[in-house]
Amino acid sequence: MDYGYIINTLFVLFSMTLIILMVPGFAMLEAGIVRTKNVTSVLTVNVMIYVIASLAFILIGYDFAFGNTQITTLSPLAFVMFQMAFVGKAINIMSGGVGERAKIFPLTLFTFIMGALIYPFMVNISWGSDILKDTLFDLNMHDLAGSTVIHSTGGWALLAAILIIGSRKGRYVNNQIKVIPASNIPLVTLGALLLWIGWFGFNGGSVGNIASKEAADTVALTIFNTNTAGLAGALSAGIFIYVRYKLFDITMILNGALGGLVAITAGADILNTANSLIIGGIGGILVVIAVPLFDKVRIDDPVGALSVHLVNGIWGTIAVGIFANDAAITLLGQIKGVAVIGILVFSISYTIIYAINKFMPFRAEDDAQMEGLDESECGIESYPEFSRTI
Amino acid sequence: MDYGYIINTLFVLFSMTLIILMVPGFAMLEAGIVRTKNVTSVLTVNVMIYVIASLAFILIGYDFAFGNTQITTLSPLAFVMFQMAFVGKAINIMSGGVGERAKIFPLTLFTFIMGALIYPFMVNISWGSDILKDTLFDLNMHDLAGSTVIHSTGGWALLAAILIIGSRKGRYVNNQIKVIPASNIPLVTLGALLLWIGWFGFNGGSVGNIASKEAADTVALTIFNTNTAGLAGALSAGIFIYVRYKLFDITMILNGALGGLVAITAGADILNTANSLIIGGIGGILVVIAVPLFDKVRIDDPVGALSVHLVNGIWGTIAVGIFANDAAITLLGQIKGVAVIGILVFSISYTIIYAINKFMPFRAEDDAQMEGLDESECGIESYPEFSRTI
Amino acid sequence: MDYGYIINTLFVLFSMTLIILMVPGFAMLEAGIVRTKNVTSVLTVNVMIYVIASLAFILIGYDFAFGNTQITTLSPLAFVMFQMAFVGKAINIMSGGVGERAKIFPLTLFTFIMGALIYPFMVNISWGSDILKDTLFDLNMHDLAGSTVIHSTGGWALLAAILIIGSRKGRYVNNQIKVIPASNIPLVTLGALLLWIGWFGFNGGSVGNIASKEAADTVALTIFNTNTAGLAGALSAGIFIYVRYKLFDITMILNGALGGLVAITAGADILNTANSLIIGGIGGILVVIAVPLFDKVRIDDPVGALSVHLVNGIWGTIAVGIFANDAAITLLGQIKGVAVIGILVFSISYTIIYAINKFMPFRAEDDAQMEGLDESECGIESYPEFSRTI
Repeated sequence: MDYGYIINTLFVLFSMTLIILMVPGFAMLEAGIVRTKNVTSVLTVNVMIYVIASLAFILIGYDFAFGNTQITTLSPLAFVMFQMAFVGKAINIMSGGVGERAKIFPLTLFTFIMGALIYPFMVNISWGSDILKDTLFDLNMHDLAGSTVIHSTGGWALLAAILIIGSRKGRYVNNQIKVIPASNIPLVTLGALLLWIGWFGFNGGSVGNIASKEAADTVALTIFNTNTAGLAGALSAGIFIYVRYKLFDITMILNGALGGLVAITAGADILNTANSLIIGGIGGILVVIAVPLFDKVRIDDPVGALSVHLVNGIWGTIAVGIFANDAAITLLGQIKGVAVIGILVFSISYTIIYAINKFMPFRAEDDAQMEGLDESECGIESYPEFSRTI
Repeated sequence: MDYGYIINTLFVLFSMTLIILMVPGFAMLEAGIVRTKNVTSVLTVNVMIYVIASLAFILIGYDFAFGNTQITTLSPLAFVMFQMAFVGKAINIMSGGVGERAKIFPLTLFTFIMGALIYPFMVNISWGSDILKDTLFDLNMHDLAGSTVIHSTGGWALLAAILIIGSRKGRYVNNQIKVIPASNIPLVTLGALLLWIGWFGFNGGSVGNIASKEAADTVALTIFNTNTAGLAGALSAGIFIYVRYKLFDITMILNGALGGLVAITAGADILNTANSLIIGGIGGILVVIAVPLFDKVRIDDPVGALSVHLVNGIWGTIAVGIFANDAAITLLGQIKGVAVIGILVFSISYTIIYAINKFMPFRAEDDAQMEGLDESECGIESYPEFSRTI
Repeated sequence: MDYGYIINTLFVLFSMTLIILMVPGFAMLEAGIVRTKNVTSVLTVNVMIYVIASLAFILIGYDFAFGNTQITTLSPLAFVMFQMAFVGKAINIMSGGVGERAKIFPLTLFTFIMGALIYPFMVNISWGSDILKDTLFDLNMHDLAGSTVIHSTGGWALLAAILIIGSRKGRYVNNQIKVIPASNIPLVTLGALLLWIGWFGFNGGSVGNIASKEAADTVALTIFNTNTAGLAGALSAGIFIYVRYKLFDITMILNGALGGLVAITAGADILNTANSLIIGGIGGILVVIAVPLFDKVRIDDPVGALSVHLVNGIWGTIAVGIFANDAAITLLGQIKGVAVIGILVFSISYTIIYAINKFMPFRAEDDAQMEGLDESECGIESYPEFSRTI
C-alpha cells in the first residue's frame, strides 16, 4: 500500500506551490518599495532569478546538494521541485538589498553561480549528503527550513555584495541619510502577505512527511508556530514604532512580521507557542533596531533585507539552541552552524562578486541611477501613463 | 490506521491557507475602493486586524469558543488555526465600513475585544461548547460557515460603529450624496477575486471532514454551490445595473458576487444547484438595492459591507430555512438564530464601542479626514510619486 | 475502502483552486498591458467571462462535453468544477486579443455561446463522449491539458474575432506601427506569475488521478515538466531579446514563459526534462518571433495572445508527436488534431462572431476608442485620482 507515498507527494506539491507564491510575493514587495524609476528592473531581476536559479538548481545544484540520496517517502520529482522552490529565495534576499543600483546582467551571472554551487553547497552540509562530515566544518545544527541555510545565506551574500557595490547614489550625502519612501504601499502589503502565506509551505513542507498521526501533528505545529511568530513580530515592531513616533508604520509592521517568520524558520517543528511568541516578538524588534543601525554604518539596503533575513536568520538559529528541549540540540552546535555557514557564504560570495565585478561592473553609473535603471537596463517604464512628482 | 486523521489535517490546512488568502483579498479590495489619501491607513488596519484578532483568538478566544471540545478527527492545532483564520474576517467587515474616518488605535482595541470575546461568544453558542444551552437564547440554526456567525456578526458590529462614529466628512452635505469613486479598480478586482477563491476554503473547510466518500462528496458539493452562488450574484447584479444604466459596473458586479457568496455560506453543504443559483442571484440583487438605501438613511459605508455581509448574511441564513430539505432545520430556528446573534452582537458592540469612544474617540478630526488618514495616522503616503488630480 | 476516491477529490479540488487563481492572473496581466483608459473595461470583461462561461458550462456545456460519462474515481462535482475552471481560460485568450476596441455586450454573448457550445464541442471530441467517433474528424491526439483543446481553441476564436473586428484605432497608420507601452508593469508581472502557478493545477490536475504510486509520480512529473518548460521559455525569450537589443524586456520574458507553458501543456505527462527544456525553449522564441510577424500583417493583438496561445498551442501539440516515446502517439495524429480543432473552431467562431456583429457590432466607435472604453462601456475610471501623461 502506497498511502504514505501518495499523500506525502500531494502534501509536498501543495507546499511547493505555496513557496512559489513567494515569487510574486518578493516581486511585489520589492516593486512597491523601490522608486517608480526602478520598478521594472527590480521586477525583471525577480523573474530572472526564479528562472536562472531554478534551472541552475535542477540541472546542477540538486545533484551537488543531495548526491545519491534516495527519496522513497514521496515522488522524487516532487522532492526535487520542492527543493528547487527554495533556491530563488536565498538569491532574492540578496538581489533585493542591492536594488536601485545593481545591473541585471552581472546579477544573473551571480544568480547562476549561487543557484548551481553556493546555495547547494550549504544545503549539502546542512541537509544533504554532507561532504564536510568529520571535518572541522561538520555541522550539527537544527535548522528546519533554513533560518541559516536560506535566510542567512542570502543575507551574507547580500552583505558581500553591498560592500563591493556600494550604496545608492545620493543616499548618504554630507553625513545625511536621504529617506526614500516606498512608491506603492499596496504592492508592499500584497507582497509581504503573499510571503507570509508562502511561509506555511516553506516551513510546513520542510517537515517532509505528513503520513502518520505524529507527522501530521508536527506539520500542524510547524505551521501554527510559523504564523504565531509572524503575528508576534508584526505586533512587537508595530508597538515599538508606535511608542516612539505615535504613528503606525506599515512597512515596519510588515518587516517585523517577516523578521518573526525568518526567526521561527529554524525551530518551528520543535518549539511551543510561548517560544514562538518570544522568538517572533524579538525578531520584530530586531528588525526595527537593525534598520537604522545598518544605515548608520552606511550599509545601504533599500528593502531591509539584512535586518529581516540575516539578523533574524542568526537569531532564529541561536534561539533554537536556547529554547529547544532536546538533548541532541546544543547552543554551541547552533552557533557553530551560524558561523560556518556565515564564513563560507560570505567568503565565497565576496570572492565571486569581486571577480565578476572586475570584468563586468555591478554598479550602474551615476547617470543611470539618477534616471532610473528601468531606462538603462530595460527600456520599459513601469507606469508610463502616470505623471510623477519626482 | 490514522488515514482519516492525516487527510483531514491536510485538507483543513489547505482550507486554512485559502482563508488566509482573504487577508490580502480584503486588504486589496479596501485599498482599491478608498481614496488614495487613505490607502495606507486602510492597509494598516487590515494587517493589524489579522495580527491582533488572531493573537487574541489563539490566546483567549479559542478556549472561550470551544472550551474542552475534544478534536479527534484531525490534528488539533490544524483545527485551532483554521478557526483562527475566520476571526479576522468578521472584524475586517466592520473595519472596512468605517474606513476613511476611523482612527487606528481605537480600532485595534475593539479588534482585541472582538477577537477575544465577542466573536468567540457567537461561535460558542453556534458551533462551540454552547453556554446558552437550554436558555432563551439556545440556538438551533444551520449555519455551515457563518452567514450569520461571521458575516452578520461583522455587519452588526459595523452598524453599531457607524451609528457612533458617523459618516465621512463631506459625504452628505445639503441633502446631497457625494459620490466617491474607487481609486484603483485593478486592486478592487484582485481583492474580490482573492476573496472568492478564499471562500472555497472558508466554506469547504467548514465541512471539517473529507475522510469518507460521503464527506468528500459533501466537500465537493459545498465548494461547487459556493462558486455557483458567487456566479449568480455577479450576474444578477450586473444585469440589474446594466438594465438600469446601460453600463457595466464592475464594483457592483464584484459586490454582487460577494453578496452571493455570503448568502450561500450558511447552507452550501445541504442545498442543490438550483437553490444556489436562486440564493446567490437574490444575494446579488440585494446588494444593488441595499447600497443606495443605506445612503438614503445616511449610513455611510464606503465598501458596501452592510449590503454585502449583513443583508446577505441574514438572507442566506433564512434561505436555508426556506430551501433546506431536512426536518431538523426550520425557518423559525433560522430566524431565531439571526435575531439572537443580531441582538447580542449589536448590543455588546454598541456598548463597547461607545465606551471606547468616550475616552479614545474613534472619529478622526475633520482636518485629518480632509488631508487623509495616511498623513495623520501613519505618516506614509500610499503612492508618493504619483501626481494626483485631487 | 474509498481512499483513492477521497484523495483524488482533494487533489482535484486543489488543482481546480489553482486554475481559478488564473482568473485574477489573466485579469491583472491584461489590466497591466492595456492603456489606463481601458483598464476597467478589460477587468470587467475578465470577470464577466468567468461568470458567464462558467454558468454556461455547468448548466449546458458539461453535459454536451461529457454526456453520460461516469465519474467514479473522484467526487463527480469536483470533476465538474475542475472542468468548469478551464472554460473561461479559452475565452480569456480570445477576449484579451481584442482588448481596447471590442464592446462588452457582444463579447458576453459570444462568451455564452463559446462556454455552452463551442468549447464543450472541442472537449467532447478530444476528451469527452466523442460524438465524431468513426467520422472523418475522429481524433487520436495526445493533448493532456489542452495545448490544442484550450489554447489553440482560444487562439482560433481570437483570430476570427480580429479579422472581423479589426485593429485598434490609430495602431497602424501610414505604414507605421504605433508602439503602445504597457501601463502597469507590476500588474503584468503579478498576472503572469499567477498564471504560471495556476498552470501547476491546470496540467497537474489534468492527470486526474494521484491515488497510486505511478499516478503520484505522473503528477509530479507533469508539474515538474510544466515548470521547466516555463523556465526555458522565459530564458530563451530573454536571451533572444537581450542579444538583439541589449535590454531586458520583462514583458517578452513573461510572454516567453507563458509560451513555454502553453507548449508543454499537451505532453507534460509523458515527456522528460530534456524534452521540456527544448519544447519550452522553442516556445519562448516562437513568441518573440511571432509578435512582430502578426503586426506585420496588421493583426492587432494587444496582449500577444495569438503568439503565446495559438502558435504555441500548435507547436506543443506537434512536439508531442515528435518527442513522445509511445507507439500510440503519432506525428500525423497530432497534426490531424491541430487541424481538425483549428478548422472547426475557426469556422464556427467566425460564423457566430460575424452573425453577432451584424446586429450588435463588436467594434467600439472611433470616439469611444479614443477616450477609452472605460468611459463608454463602464462609466468608471480605473485610476481616477492619478494625473495622466496621455
